[in-house]
Amino acid sequence: MRALVFDGTMLTLKERPRPVAEEGYAVIRVEIAGICNTDLEIKEGYMGFRGILGHEFVGTVASGPASWTGRRVVSEINFGCGECEECLLNESRHCATRRVMGILDADGAFAEYVAAPVRNLHAVPDEVKSQEAVFCEPLAAAFEILEQITVQNGQGCTVIGDGKLGLLIAQVLADAGARVCCVGRHAANLAILTNLGIETTTLDAWSGNHANSSDLVVEATGRAEGFRLAVEATRPRGTLVLKSTLAASGEIDLAPLVIDEIRLVGSRCGPFTPALRALKEHRIAVEPLVSGLFPLARADEGLSHAGTRGVRKVLVDCAGTHDTR
Amino acid sequence: MRALVFDGTMLTLKERPRPVAEEGYAVIRVEIAGICNTDLEIKEGYMGFRGILGHEFVGTVASGPASWTGRRVVSEINFGCGECEECLLNESRHCATRRVMGILDADGAFAEYVAAPVRNLHAVPDEVKSQEAVFCEPLAAAFEILEQITVQNGQGCTVIGDGKLGLLIAQVLADAGARVCCVGRHAANLAILTNLGIETTTLDAWSGNHANSSDLVVEATGRAEGFRLAVEATRPRGTLVLKSTLAASGEIDLAPLVIDEIRLVGSRCGPFTPALRALKEHRIAVEPLVSGLFPLARADEGLSHAGTRGVRKVLVDCAGTHDTR
Repeated sequence: MRALVFDGTMLTLKERPRPVAEEGYAVIRVEIAGICNTDLEIKEGYMGFRGILGHEFVGTVASGPASWTGRRVVSEINFGCGECEECLLNESRHCATRRVMGILDADGAFAEYVAAPVRNLHAVPDEVKSQEAVFCEPLAAAFEILEQITVQNGQGCTVIGDGKLGLLIAQVLADAGARVCCVGRHAANLAILTNLGIETTTLDAWSGNHANSSDLVVEATGRAEGFRLAVEATRPRGTLVLKSTLAASGEIDLAPLVIDEIRLVGSRCGPFTPALRALKEHRIAVEPLVSGLFPLARADEGLSHAGTRGVRKVLVDCAGTHDTR
Repeated sequence: MRALVFDGTMLTLKERPRPVAEEGYAVIRVEIAGICNTDLEIKEGYMGFRGILGHEFVGTVASGPASWTGRRVVSEINFGCGECEECLLNESRHCATRRVMGILDADGAFAEYVAAPVRNLHAVPDEVKSQEAVFCEPLAAAFEILEQITVQNGQGCTVIGDGKLGLLIAQVLADAGARVCCVGRHAANLAILTNLGIETTTLDAWSGNHANSSDLVVEATGRAEGFRLAVEATRPRGTLVLKSTLAASGEIDLAPLVIDEIRLVGSRCGPFTPALRALKEHRIAVEPLVSGLFPLARADEGLSHAGTRGVRKVLVDCAGTHDTR
C-alpha cells in the first residue's frame, strides 16, 4: 500500500506492506485523514517519531472481527497495554507503555490502511458524513476540557487562538452553555464563529484590555506568547486550560500562577463518544473548518499547506474517492 | 520606635515614627515576629519593596477601636481596598490594588509597632502561646491548600521540601486525613515529622523511584529543581500544588503537564480561622519548628541565620519580653 512515511528527516510517499489484523486489532481502509499541528511538530522532531504519520481519520474496517468488518469507523489513538492500573481504570490514554497512532511507536493513517485495537473503534452514525467524522479526534480533544472542569451555564470563557483547535474548543464550550469569546488574528477564522453566534475579538482589540478578565481561559495558540497572554487574562483563582505542549516551554515565569492562585489544567486527548454525538446532532460545525483536501499522493504538499498562516484543517483523501481538485 | 528597614540595598535598624491608628485601623505592639523566606527574597530584590520588613507576627492592640484595645491578636497581611469586586466577595487577598504587610506598600512587623486594618485582625485564644500564634500566617498558607483542593481520607500525598513551610503543609494534610510522605534533605527536619507519626523519606532514597507515583504533590522547596521533581512525581491526571513563586521561573518545560493532564494549582496566602483553631486544638506542632529567637536589635542577624541551610523558623523578639540568649 502507499503511505506517507517520516524517516526522521524526510517525509516520503512509499510502498509499505499492508498491516495485518492481529488478535484484538482491526485493519481499516482509510477514507479521509486530517492533518494536525502535531504532525507538523513531528516533522520538526517532536516525539522522535519514525513511521507512517497521521492520527485523525475515518475509514471502513477491512479485516478483523466479523462484527466490525464493513463498518465505517473512527479510532481512538492511544493503544494501552490493557493490563496496567491506568488501562484497567479505562484510562488507557495515560497508560505508561501506550503506543500512539502516528505519534509514538504505531503507524498512522496517512496511508491506504491502518491498524487499530478493536476496543479503540467507534462506529460512525449514518447521519455523520466522512468529512465530518474525520474531525472526531480533535473534537474529542476539545470535549476533554468538559471532562476536566465544570463549565457553568452563562460562565464567561476566553479562548485564545482561532486555529482549527481553537475553533472547535470555542464551539464545544459555547455548546456547554458558556459565554465564549474567542481571540484571534485571522478574520476569516473568527467569522466562522461569528456566523455561529459566538463572540470574537481580534488580538489587537483585546490586548491591553484583557488583564485578569476571565474566570476560564483556554490557551489554543500553541505559542509561548499565547501562554503568556493566557496567564495575564486569567482572573485570580481562575482556571487556565493548556491544550498545547509547544506553548509551554522555554523561559516561563509561573510566579503569577502562585500570586493569583490560578489553576492550570493540562489537557490532551479526549472522549470520542460525546464528540460523535455532537456531530450526529449537528451541534458543532466542522465543515467550515476545512481549508483543503489533497490526494494521498500529494499528502506532503497538504502538510506544507497546513503549516501556512491562517490555514485551518487540511484533509487527505487516502482512498481516492473524493474530489481533490 | 525601632524598626528593621530595607532601603533597597541595606537592612538597617532605624528609628521610625510609631504608626497612628487611622480610621478602620489598629496599631499593634508587636510581641514576636517570624522570618519567612519571602523576607529573604525581598532582601534580594523581590517585589521591589522598601520599608519595614516582616509579615508574620503576634502582638497586643495598643490603639484603635476600644473593643480591640488590649487584645492579643494576629493579622492577615493583605490589605484590600474594601470596594472592588474581589473585596466585596471577601477575596481581599486578591484585591488588585491591595497592599501587603512587609511585602507591598505597607510597613511590616519587624518593629515595635505595626498598623493593620481592624477587619484583618484575629484574636488569639488563651490556649495558644505567642510562640505558637506567630506561626498563624504561614500555617494559614498551608491551610489554603484545603480551600483549593479536596483531600480525601487516606489519599496518598507527597510533600517535597522539609523546610518550615513543608513541615507545616505535611502536618496540615496529615491532619486532613491524607497519607502524607514528606521528601527532604535535612534529617533533623524530617525527624520532627517522624515523631508526629508522619512518613518521611530522604531525597536520595526517593529520587529515581518516584516517577508518576503520587495523585497529589505539593512543591514546597522553592527551587526550580523541586518543581521539576514535583512534575515528575505527579501521576497522570494528578494534582500538583505550587506554593512558591521562586520554584517556577526560568527554563521550564510544561509539556508533561499537558501530556499527563496534570492540574497545577498555584497557592499563596490562606485563611487564619482554621489555622488558629488547629493551634488551639494542638493539632499542629509548631514549636519544634523554631530554630532561634533574636532580639529586635539583632533582627538582621536573625535574617542571615534564617538563610542558613537546614535552619527552620527564626523568630524576632520585638518587645524584649522573651529569653533571646
